[in-house]
Amino acid sequence: MAHAGLHSVCIVGPGLIGGSVGLALQASDFRGRVHGICRTQALADAALGQGAVQSASVGPAGLPPDTDLYVVAVPVMAARLVFRMLSSELRIRPAVVTDVGSSKVEVLRAAADELSDDSLFVGGHPMAGSEKSGVEFARADLFRNATVVLTPGTRTRPGAVDVVRRLWEPLAARVVTMAAERHDEIVARVSHLPHLLASLLMLQAARDEGLSIAATGLLDSTRLASGDAALWEEILLSNRKQIRRAIGRLASDLARISEWLALADGERLRRLLERAARVRDEWVARKYDEHWID
Amino acid sequence: MAHAGLHSVCIVGPGLIGGSVGLALQASDFRGRVHGICRTQALADAALGQGAVQSASVGPAGLPPDTDLYVVAVPVMAARLVFRMLSSELRIRPAVVTDVGSSKVEVLRAAADELSDDSLFVGGHPMAGSEKSGVEFARADLFRNATVVLTPGTRTRPGAVDVVRRLWEPLAARVVTMAAERHDEIVARVSHLPHLLASLLMLQAARDEGLSIAATGLLDSTRLASGDAALWEEILLSNRKQIRRAIGRLASDLARISEWLALADGERLRRLLERAARVRDEWVARKYDEHWID
Repeated sequence: MAHAGLHSVCIVGPGLIGGSVGLALQASDFRGRVHGICRTQALADAALGQGAVQSASVGPAGLPPDTDLYVVAVPVMAARLVFRMLSSELRIRPAVVTDVGSSKVEVLRAAADELSDDSLFVGGHPMAGSEKSGVEFARADLFRNATVVLTPGTRTRPGAVDVVRRLWEPLAARVVTMAAERHDEIVARVSHLPHLLASLLMLQAARDEGLSIAATGLLDSTRLASGDAALWEEILLSNRKQIRRAIGRLASDLARISEWLALADGERLRRLLERAARVRDEWVARKYDEHWID
Repeated sequence: MAHAGLHSVCIVGPGLIGGSVGLALQASDFRGRVHGICRTQALADAALGQGAVQSASVGPAGLPPDTDLYVVAVPVMAARLVFRMLSSELRIRPAVVTDVGSSKVEVLRAAADELSDDSLFVGGHPMAGSEKSGVEFARADLFRNATVVLTPGTRTRPGAVDVVRRLWEPLAARVVTMAAERHDEIVARVSHLPHLLASLLMLQAARDEGLSIAATGLLDSTRLASGDAALWEEILLSNRKQIRRAIGRLASDLARISEWLALADGERLRRLLERAARVRDEWVARKYDEHWID
């Protein structure tokens, strides 16, 4: 599938995710330019060194004039500053802007506040990553078979969504579109709460020499806890309303289970475990058998 | 390392764990007999078919008369019935008995109740397994580098502990000894609570089409939820006092974090995430660098 109509892509913050976009574009049939805007010269050198971008600058000076898509791949809270930085450039040479942040309502609000024309902004969230961060962990195949959620705002032009779709689909990602509010509600449950729990489980396990006998079950359940703390602080804060709702539901579930345990109610406990196993097994089968590309 | 002094080992219930003990023994320098006692002829045939045991019987008839170690590898609640079944045989031909259950206080109580002489009983818990169950998933290397916790009772003879140690150490496992109460308190935190949470996360994620955009983070965090429900019902019930304590602590942690989120207290949140990441990274490094055999 061709990246039809895309000539020059500018990645703002080519780290793990942005760098992987750059590598993936260059490994695909995309024949245009991949430019990176970095916070420091050292980061620009690293991105160039990894081949994630073909040219790089610190700040917007030196941008290719035919840039038709900006991929803002910075931590959630920093997106607002990037939009502010790009706004005068975009006023002169309009282009589609998307991002890769893990929560979307706040990013759309920042785009509306900072961009002179947010009808060219499309929120984006590739559901792929790693507990590692930095361009040295970027991979050309990071988005292969991944789901990318696009969250247009109420003013976003359909043509802008198409441009962003034409970024991702040729990278073998599955693109779905939904409202930012719905995205944030779902990721609170499928990503943000699991991340918090991984950290809490890890700390509870480590108390009083618990790790001396811990095994692979704990290793897998806590993998997310090795993620970058500063990055996740921002993600969690930016979606705190939905995460607090998810925490509330989990707390009720835990209270109910604690009561079943007190009553030695094995029947109810087993039914819950069975349902969870069935739901997971069906999900895993579906994920690898149908939805996924290969 | 030789299985010094072990002549004939009887595995009661050669499934995933018991079957792996049988395969591992036969792959090691153990030259004695590996016999299996199974619940049904079909299970006996399966264990023989997988090569997990050299001979098998339904019930204690046909046991090799020189059996010097019984490995009881049945679900926690069934251990009591097995001890009862073995008690008359053991009265005639005493032998060391150990088990592989995930909680230990209840198993020691069952041994004290059912065995005429529980000074030859040593609780055991290999910290290895899989979300799969059944002898068809048994593996000769399941215990390689795994920790095996032994929990002698107050009346257990030191010689009996040595016999069980001589079962596990030649299978490349690391043996540690502790009181059953301490074992149960730790596994509630490092294994049982993570299992429950995997199930709860899975169910919460699946609500309202959440799985349509879930990714590998959720996949790893919920792996334990695919475990056998009936087996885990028993494990959780058998350690319910300690699990309820762990749930209580987690509920307090969640309430605290929900408050930080309400206050947008990023500083505290980040410190917690940082501590968890550090603890995990140090644990992973230690686990693979020092404690582990290869």
